Amino acid sequence: MYRSHTNGELNLSNVGQEVTLSGWVQKVRDKGFVIWIDLRDRYGITQLILDEDRTDTSLLEKTKTLGREFVIQIRGTVIERQSKNEKIKTGAIEVLVSEMQVLNEALLPPFTIEDETDGGEELRMKYRYLDIRRNPVKNSLIFRHQVTQEVRNFLTNEAFVEVETPYLIKSTPEGARDFVVPSRMNSGQFYALPQSPQTFKQLLMVGGMDKYFQIVKCFRDEDLRADRQPEFTQIDCEMAFVEQEDILDVFEGLTRHLLQKVNNIEIGDFPRMTFDHAMKTYGNDKPDVRFGMEFGELNTVSKHRNFKIFDEAELVVGIAVPGGAFYTRKEIDKLVDWVKRPQIGALGMIYVKCNEDGSFKSSVDKFYDQEDLAKWAKETNAKAGDLICVLSGQTSKVRAQMSALRMELAERLGLRNPKEFAPLWVVDFPLLEWDEDSARYHAMHHPFTSPKPEDMHLLDSDPGKVRANAYDLVLNGNEIGGGSIRIHDKKTQALLFEHLGFRPEEAEEQFGFLLNAFEYGAPPHGGLAFGLDRLVAILAGKETIRDFIAFPKNNSGRDVMIDAPSKLDDSQLTELSLQLNLAEHKEV
Amino acid sequence: MYRSHTNGELNLSNVGQEVTLSGWVQKVRDKGFVIWIDLRDRYGITQLILDEDRTDTSLLEKTKTLGREFVIQIRGTVIERQSKNEKIKTGAIEVLVSEMQVLNEALLPPFTIEDETDGGEELRMKYRYLDIRRNPVKNSLIFRHQVTQEVRNFLTNEAFVEVETPYLIKSTPEGARDFVVPSRMNSGQFYALPQSPQTFKQLLMVGGMDKYFQIVKCFRDEDLRADRQPEFTQIDCEMAFVEQEDILDVFEGLTRHLLQKVNNIEIGDFPRMTFDHAMKTYGNDKPDVRFGMEFGELNTVSKHRNFKIFDEAELVVGIAVPGGAFYTRKEIDKLVDWVKRPQIGALGMIYVKCNEDGSFKSSVDKFYDQEDLAKWAKETNAKAGDLICVLSGQTSKVRAQMSALRMELAERLGLRNPKEFAPLWVVDFPLLEWDEDSARYHAMHHPFTSPKPEDMHLLDSDPGKVRANAYDLVLNGNEIGGGSIRIHDKKTQALLFEHLGFRPEEAEEQFGFLLNAFEYGAPPHGGLAFGLDRLVAILAGKETIRDFIAFPKNNSGRDVMIDAPSKLDDSQLTELSLQLNLAEHKEV
Repeated sequence: MYRSHTNGELNLSNVGQEVTLSGWVQKVRDKGFVIWIDLRDRYGITQLILDEDRTDTSLLEKTKTLGREFVIQIRGTVIERQSKNEKIKTGAIEVLVSEMQVLNEALLPPFTIEDETDGGEELRMKYRYLDIRRNPVKNSLIFRHQVTQEVRNFLTNEAFVEVETPYLIKSTPEGARDFVVPSRMNSGQFYALPQSPQTFKQLLMVGGMDKYFQIVKCFRDEDLRADRQPEFTQIDCEMAFVEQEDILDVFEGLTRHLLQKVNNIEIGDFPRMTFDHAMKTYGNDKPDVRFGMEFGELNTVSKHRNFKIFDEAELVVGIAVPGGAFYTRKEIDKLVDWVKRPQIGALGMIYVKCNEDGSFKSSVDKFYDQEDLAKWAKETNAKAGDLICVLSGQTSKVRAQMSALRMELAERLGLRNPKEFAPLWVVDFPLLEWDEDSARYHAMHHPFTSPKPEDMHLLDSDPGKVRANAYDLVLNGNEIGGGSIRIHDKKTQALLFEHLGFRPEEAEEQFGFLLNAFEYGAPPHGGLAFGLDRLVAILAGKETIRDFIAFPKNNSGRDVMIDAPSKLDDSQLTELSLQLNLAEHKEV
Repeated sequence: MYRSHTNGELNLSNVGQEVTLSGWVQKVRDKGFVIWIDLRDRYGITQLILDEDRTDTSLLEKTKTLGREFVIQIRGTVIERQSKNEKIKTGAIEVLVSEMQVLNEALLPPFTIEDETDGGEELRMKYRYLDIRRNPVKNSLIFRHQVTQEVRNFLTNEAFVEVETPYLIKSTPEGARDFVVPSRMNSGQFYALPQSPQTFKQLLMVGGMDKYFQIVKCFRDEDLRADRQPEFTQIDCEMAFVEQEDILDVFEGLTRHLLQKVNNIEIGDFPRMTFDHAMKTYGNDKPDVRFGMEFGELNTVSKHRNFKIFDEAELVVGIAVPGGAFYTRKEIDKLVDWVKRPQIGALGMIYVKCNEDGSFKSSVDKFYDQEDLAKWAKETNAKAGDLICVLSGQTSKVRAQMSALRMELAERLGLRNPKEFAPLWVVDFPLLEWDEDSARYHAMHHPFTSPKPEDMHLLDSDPGKVRANAYDLVLNGNEIGGGSIRIHDKKTQALLFEHLGFRPEEAEEQFGFLLNAFEYGAPPHGGLAFGLDRLVAILAGKETIRDFIAFPKNNSGRDVMIDAPSKLDDSQLTELSLQLNLAEHKEV
């Protein structure tokens, strides 16, 4: 037996007990006549003590040879500590060591195994197994487990069945690139790894498994942006014989359950906001509604005053920054520079200071009088002491710019409190979005998303106006997940494929097995998928997902710890009927 | 709202209620003046009724157009049935239909959606979404979910943390072929799909996550035998600061929990049997101990009687077949033929009938007298009425043959009761096994398996005799899973690699990152993995795993439903820096 207790459980009630402990040497404090060791494991730290009076000399000497991260096992007696440490669970006791065994030695770790480490990202990833010993990473992984358990318990109680769908499949209709897997037994042919189990979950609905979920790895071979992983985990769900509201109810319930169980926060009904409203009010389809600064559209109160920039703009929009009236000229200039950065792309910013005395001072006083500016203040809900920031231009661009500014200012003002949770549903997404490159409409969600019946008549005349039965769950400015009611009848599906520019043969080739399944009695169905990595990070109040993934890959898709991907033997390639073609390779 | 109730919940207490139901038309019985419909969903079947007296004529006419598997929604009133069907939950009521809507039509399914179907394996796989509507498949998938939930609940209660390990990794040290995934971003390089998370779980132990589990897909590119899948699911576990007994305790507890929760069966302590004993007594390292027929070794009582075959044999071994003394000559001849089939490979079989009167009649009466045969009966525990079957030859071969005969006879005699569960641990596996082809020892489990310290001295003199801290859980003649205590110190690991014929550079190249991790304070650790697909099938009392996998592949590794694997576009290959090399391909 390696231990009678973990290092997180001994307290005053154990005083006098003979115990066996195992763990890592966190720290040795050698005062000569007395030595303290912090012994660490997953559960905590227990202080060990050895001293000249009570400890055998040879044991004392042996202790002096211990290095950081040595793995040791000790026997000893629990005693009360003289100076207690209230910060740790075991802080009232220490263990007087009578025997010690070194289970394994350790090289000096390349970074310190402490909450705040001196290891940079690259080093931490290379020695991820040491990084995981640190509380922030260890606790993130344990937290992730708690969340997934709660997800499974909730959905199981709601009669959902977790069904494993295959990983070796065929390309899915989603837009991104597939990772492929050459088949040795079927030479020249390839499997694809799933971008999502979309088609399989729809087939399960056709199969009558009316409440499906799965916590499942998905794969996308995309050029990685920061905080994107080539493999990621989804909470994937689908239901049959449901309408949109049935689905929202269940997954609002799930989210509420998680907030209650893992964050101890009670949240009432989630607001539902249309896509149009979100874009108009927040410039964004995943608004952070923990704070105000809602958009005020100023077209009617800013045009025809000879200010050419506004007169020519499709949209003039402002937000009120709390307390911003006290910004110095220099601070405001920096803000203007910020919106003019290429990442944001605004050409400039107009501002209005709302003075405490009720007067206004703007950067366009030449064109607008106090009465005009009072109207701007009204539209943006600005109060005395606020700064109104105004951007203008082409609607979709200026909304994106203003949204970025709003988030940046909220961050600076400390309005994005990670302990506060403001979930909402964004609904009524457009069915189609115009793609400039291909000069045609694409499915905003995917080609199986159901249009709203009442908008069907617009499909020919004004396709961009057709709304879908599609929805996203948004939490604190992040899209947690989304889904849709699917098309389940051939006629509508054929119509949609036609509008998406598919020839019937193409549709058959790409989606044949699903279309075929739809001929054998497909029930009305719909579902959604949550991104687990992001959900867990947000519930933990963190911005980055990496600490919630045990062994993440870097931005080149490499696992630097195991050094993957790597070269194959020629014999392996031959067996797969493949050869490398590096000369022809072009960077894409 | 598509339904107020499912088709499995209405009973006499609902009589008089107005309900809305949805589902599939299982059957329409049209008697002209009255029509009954069996409406089916995941939860059961509800009988609908329409008749001339109470139903609108146009509705009656519409009903006559319904085909099998049409998806319909109805409104109606629950009424008491005149002739009740006690076989189904809703058998006391029926629903008098007042409104009906066809939600989707259906082509005639290619096989009947009933418990006993006329669809062959191939057809059922092609239309798996229809197959899943059938109770045997649907219930198997739901059962699988129940089992996995119980596994997760049990292990979570035991403080295990489910950690997701990556799918895009590097080749693992296990013996089988890897599936590989070309990397576009790292041209010419490949990921491998995990054969198991073995190295990652050991790294998690080094990382201090001392109780890990994961229910995880694993991949092996093997030539498929019946009932093998290229992707399969493991319950994968690892623990640190444990000895073998600690691990057996936990997973015996898990197995007991499952038997109790999903089978309602209480099982006491699991027997532990050494590998040597299992081989000697059952000829097999995964003995089915639900029945006797244990091997009786007859060397001492059969040699030196001038029967050359036995005299020359390394092993003479017999089993007693209950009631076999009454087999006819023809039946016994068929048994002899059975053991002589190439799959079994025996050269012949000697038999002894144990007559009711205490006398014996054998096929070798020329060589053995009644006293000799009485000794055989004693060694094989044969009673009056039994038939002793005796095989002889080279020990390992004859044990395998006799084991096959024992299982076959038990099957024929109905001794393998699927409702009875007899788990046991087989322990003390050999560390190494001799491989004829390469003429050297290989690791029986894997190269990180720890030898028993007390056997270490045999590593040079008699390597085949060194036992490992390795164990298998066996249930009803199936290996459910297995594992081992791992080596966690450099010295032993280096010694093992040497004995396995690895040059130090090779070991470094293949296992470098794990060996490196072992330098930074690796704790003593060990673990195991259960095969979930097989475990679930056995708990359900079934022999085949396919019905417990939602979308299985066939023996060529094909998914015939979605038609995968399939060809890639040339552009996709170019992007991956690959080209096909079909000419050079040799069948392997």
